Amino acid sequence: MIRLKLALELDYEVFDPGCDFIFNIHAAHTDRQRVVGEELTLSQKVPSTLETDPATRNRYLRLSALPGPLRVAYSATVDLTHHFAQPDQIAEVPVAQLPAQALSYIYPSRYCQSDRLLKLAMREFGRQWHGYARVQGIRDWVLRRTTFLQNTSNATTSAIDTLIDTVGVCRDFAHLMIALCRAINIPARFTTGIDYGADPALGPTDFHAYVEAYLGDRWYMFDPSGTAIPMGFVRLGTGRDAADVAFATIFGPVSSQAPRITIEAIPGADGRLVMPYHCAEALSTD
Amino acid sequence: MIRLKLALELDYEVFDPGCDFIFNIHAAHTDRQRVVGEELTLSQKVPSTLETDPATRNRYLRLSALPGPLRVAYSATVDLTHHFAQPDQIAEVPVAQLPAQALSYIYPSRYCQSDRLLKLAMREFGRQWHGYARVQGIRDWVLRRTTFLQNTSNATTSAIDTLIDTVGVCRDFAHLMIALCRAINIPARFTTGIDYGADPALGPTDFHAYVEAYLGDRWYMFDPSGTAIPMGFVRLGTGRDAADVAFATIFGPVSSQAPRITIEAIPGADGRLVMPYHCAEALSTD
Amino acid sequence: MIRLKLALELDYEVFDPGCDFIFNIHAAHTDRQRVVGEELTLSQKVPSTLETDPATRNRYLRLSALPGPLRVAYSATVDLTHHFAQPDQIAEVPVAQLPAQALSYIYPSRYCQSDRLLKLAMREFGRQWHGYARVQGIRDWVLRRTTFLQNTSNATTSAIDTLIDTVGVCRDFAHLMIALCRAINIPARFTTGIDYGADPALGPTDFHAYVEAYLGDRWYMFDPSGTAIPMGFVRLGTGRDAADVAFATIFGPVSSQAPRITIEAIPGADGRLVMPYHCAEALSTD
Amino acid sequence: MIRLKLALELDYEVFDPGCDFIFNIHAAHTDRQRVVGEELTLSQKVPSTLETDPATRNRYLRLSALPGPLRVAYSATVDLTHHFAQPDQIAEVPVAQLPAQALSYIYPSRYCQSDRLLKLAMREFGRQWHGYARVQGIRDWVLRRTTFLQNTSNATTSAIDTLIDTVGVCRDFAHLMIALCRAINIPARFTTGIDYGADPALGPTDFHAYVEAYLGDRWYMFDPSGTAIPMGFVRLGTGRDAADVAFATIFGPVSSQAPRITIEAIPGADGRLVMPYHCAEALSTD
Repeated sequence: MIRLKLALELDYEVFDPGCDFIFNIHAAHTDRQRVVGEELTLSQKVPSTLETDPATRNRYLRLSALPGPLRVAYSATVDLTHHFAQPDQIAEVPVAQLPAQALSYIYPSRYCQSDRLLKLAMREFGRQWHGYARVQGIRDWVLRRTTFLQNTSNATTSAIDTLIDTVGVCRDFAHLMIALCRAINIPARFTTGIDYGADPALGPTDFHAYVEAYLGDRWYMFDPSGTAIPMGFVRLGTGRDAADVAFATIFGPVSSQAPRITIEAIPGADGRLVMPYHCAEALSTD
Repeated sequence: MIRLKLALELDYEVFDPGCDFIFNIHAAHTDRQRVVGEELTLSQKVPSTLETDPATRNRYLRLSALPGPLRVAYSATVDLTHHFAQPDQIAEVPVAQLPAQALSYIYPSRYCQSDRLLKLAMREFGRQWHGYARVQGIRDWVLRRTTFLQNTSNATTSAIDTLIDTVGVCRDFAHLMIALCRAINIPARFTTGIDYGADPALGPTDFHAYVEAYLGDRWYMFDPSGTAIPMGFVRLGTGRDAADVAFATIFGPVSSQAPRITIEAIPGADGRLVMPYHCAEALSTD
Repeated sequence: MIRLKLALELDYEVFDPGCDFIFNIHAAHTDRQRVVGEELTLSQKVPSTLETDPATRNRYLRLSALPGPLRVAYSATVDLTHHFAQPDQIAEVPVAQLPAQALSYIYPSRYCQSDRLLKLAMREFGRQWHGYARVQGIRDWVLRRTTFLQNTSNATTSAIDTLIDTVGVCRDFAHLMIALCRAINIPARFTTGIDYGADPALGPTDFHAYVEAYLGDRWYMFDPSGTAIPMGFVRLGTGRDAADVAFATIFGPVSSQAPRITIEAIPGADGRLVMPYHCAEALSTD
Repeated sequence: MIRLKLALELDYEVFDPGCDFIFNIHAAHTDRQRVVGEELTLSQKVPSTLETDPATRNRYLRLSALPGPLRVAYSATVDLTHHFAQPDQIAEVPVAQLPAQALSYIYPSRYCQSDRLLKLAMREFGRQWHGYARVQGIRDWVLRRTTFLQNTSNATTSAIDTLIDTVGVCRDFAHLMIALCRAINIPARFTTGIDYGADPALGPTDFHAYVEAYLGDRWYMFDPSGTAIPMGFVRLGTGRDAADVAFATIFGPVSSQAPRITIEAIPGADGRLVMPYHCAEALSTD
């Protein structure tokens, strides 16, 4: 068990006539990710609602902010009890046996146009041994031929753009990996969290996007941009792609500052401090 | 109440080594669409499963076909009890008040890249009176500047393609209308059915795609291609766009023939025959 | 006759191991644009060549710069003797009668994908009276539905992007207008100059891109972004689109500053000062 | 010296009100491609003009056809005196030393969006030894990752589409190879001819598209689709990409049949029959 303490602050200047927000910044509750404590503070005294989407377990905070400054501060203590598995023991699931809730993750989505990549994916990965290793092979392929570079992509950049441009940030690596998985009928989804363990040279701690692929009997985590330590990932949202799980969706005129985020491993209920590390096993918190 | 009888036959030649299918050809059960009888016949004696997605109520038939011919025949008798409303009484819903289950339908999807159309939609529709009429205005705009023409689009054609090409089939009209609605934060989804009432000059009775937009307190139907009579629409599937609700998703080598479909209004339980007609009221079966 | 004096300075910092440049900053010589004096100064003592492309009359300056600062300063005095014509006297030219040198300007190019816009252009402009007024109609259509906004486009933005995004700068307006002209078989080309007469609120004097369309027996000027005064345009380069006539094409590592440009009308050889003005006549300097 | 005899017949049905055509079906005259005899027959008695573009040496036949059938028959006897060179003796030309007439072939064009492929090309080919072998490497890369398949592309398919789709016909292979060459500043152009030596299994003798790259002091031929024998290529047209050198550009309502084409090596003036063959040397007819 790993206990992580995360804290994030988002600052906005809301302009006239105010602005609606949908935030997805709360840690998800799953069987293996337990939120043992959390706190939300809003600088404006406006009503807010917090709902959990039953299908994804994403937790959405909604509020209508007034003109003026808005600060949203969230902190949480989260216990992760990872499922560990040996990669060579994890098989792919034939389409006919996929659980219904995984099915929609084999279809193309806004930023993961898998329907355009069927032949390319078959050519590159069609003859590889089926199983976890094939997905890991896709992850490595994406990482190898894409350069991590800030400010090379934007909100409309898709998997196909990244394939052509060969640069991007974590979001873009994730989209390309997802599109390639789906192109060979492996369910893959876009998951958001914090970039635990990322090299400070890449900038301050930030939101992160990674991939979960459905293999064997569950969703396993992959970090195609290779910038962080998956064992330290606290899941915030999961969806088809970035269209579903922006940390903030904003409906009105605002200016915003860079988020300020911290995350660290702390001693668990038993007083032991366990640090996330790069491991060879397959990992799942779902 | 309108009672419709529909029947459809799908014929495939499955090649070695067989093929998995996911069909979405069953009429959905909703509060206002009641399936009073239905029958499914498969020409192959293979196991099949029928599941209902709780979020969309789509009913998915899955099976693994053996090499050789496969015929799937489905027929149903469906009672529609439409919700009728006066267009000028139906308001748009502010984002802050949208129900959670409608929220995901304001995000862009594979074939409805609303994120690319924010400025265009605002320019064309931003100053129009908000409400049902604005959505009807989008529907009319799409219909006016798009020509219905077979064989001008394919499985990768998106809303942006249709905007540029100004031609397409029902699927393309629906994608463009959906993308424009979402671009101004109106939830819109892609719905499939049968093209009841379509001009025989367009070809034999076929599957149809249309749009549902969330307005007031429910999903209202729109037929952007203008080819059919919405009051005769039996809903099969609904989703983000065509990626979610293909009538058949096929994982393996097959050849297929054109579907053979019939649909007609028949007398209801009370012996009265009510025929669908073009009406000025807003319609919902959700 | 209008005499213009223009001066421009380009500053670069060239990094190791040096850098090749191709500049297209010299005023073109045409029958109606006479360069009465010009001067080029390079801050580095490196050889340079100046060539004139016989097909376009573009003048290309080439040099290989050494690491370190590079300043390129060019000034010229140019006499324009415009051809004026009444718009209603100017006909379109049937394809069969187009001169060979105009033909290539009806084909699609990198940023002007006219082949994608045939139906849209026919729908919007197909039934309009053929002649100068139709081209002016295209120019007005582009201007009306596109907003001039800095930093909304980049070097890969094409006519189709601009059609969808409905924003751009002079280059983007020109590309969209050209693509629409070609889509209805009117030769149109991309021309560069200085934005004489532009509102200082749009920023300092800058390079400009506008359109020339072949009508009657010559190339007429159009300013689809509507930001400048065409009668004050000194032609630097002309080509298929921006791919052909960048003011600087750079092959190596450099950083650059914004160009510093001035242009003003000055008294001509006869001592008279004639100022460019917005006029209703069609204008050509070709 | 190789003597080739080619004959082609194009059949159209022209509808009311007639149709303008621009054909580029005449063999080009170059220093190493000599047309020793040719004949053109038109089934309609309409005036036609034949012009040679001075920049490309393309020969354009223009005519305005009347409603009714139109047959265009062209035959020619052509002597090719190839320039042969050893691949390892052929260097790339630094941009600063490229002749002016080759320069425009390093810029992106409609179907060869080299500006999108700079990083990908640098990643794949940037560290390879510069020279003919690098261009041959690009040609091999394109051939290896693209499958020749009829009816997988259309008139709007571009190099980027082919990169993603990994299928296409000769035109598509050529576009992708050209885009990659230009992305690393090697001038490359699209050339049309007849697919001499193609496997009859691919269909009847047809028009062909291949690539010429400027290396050393001339344009060398490459056949990225690998379907034909370059030594048997008679050059018809050359240009930026397929937009420039369609064998027929048609401005009006027609239906057309597949062209009927023959080409064969015949004895030369000295009575000797020399057959084109696959050779290891670099070849040029420019």
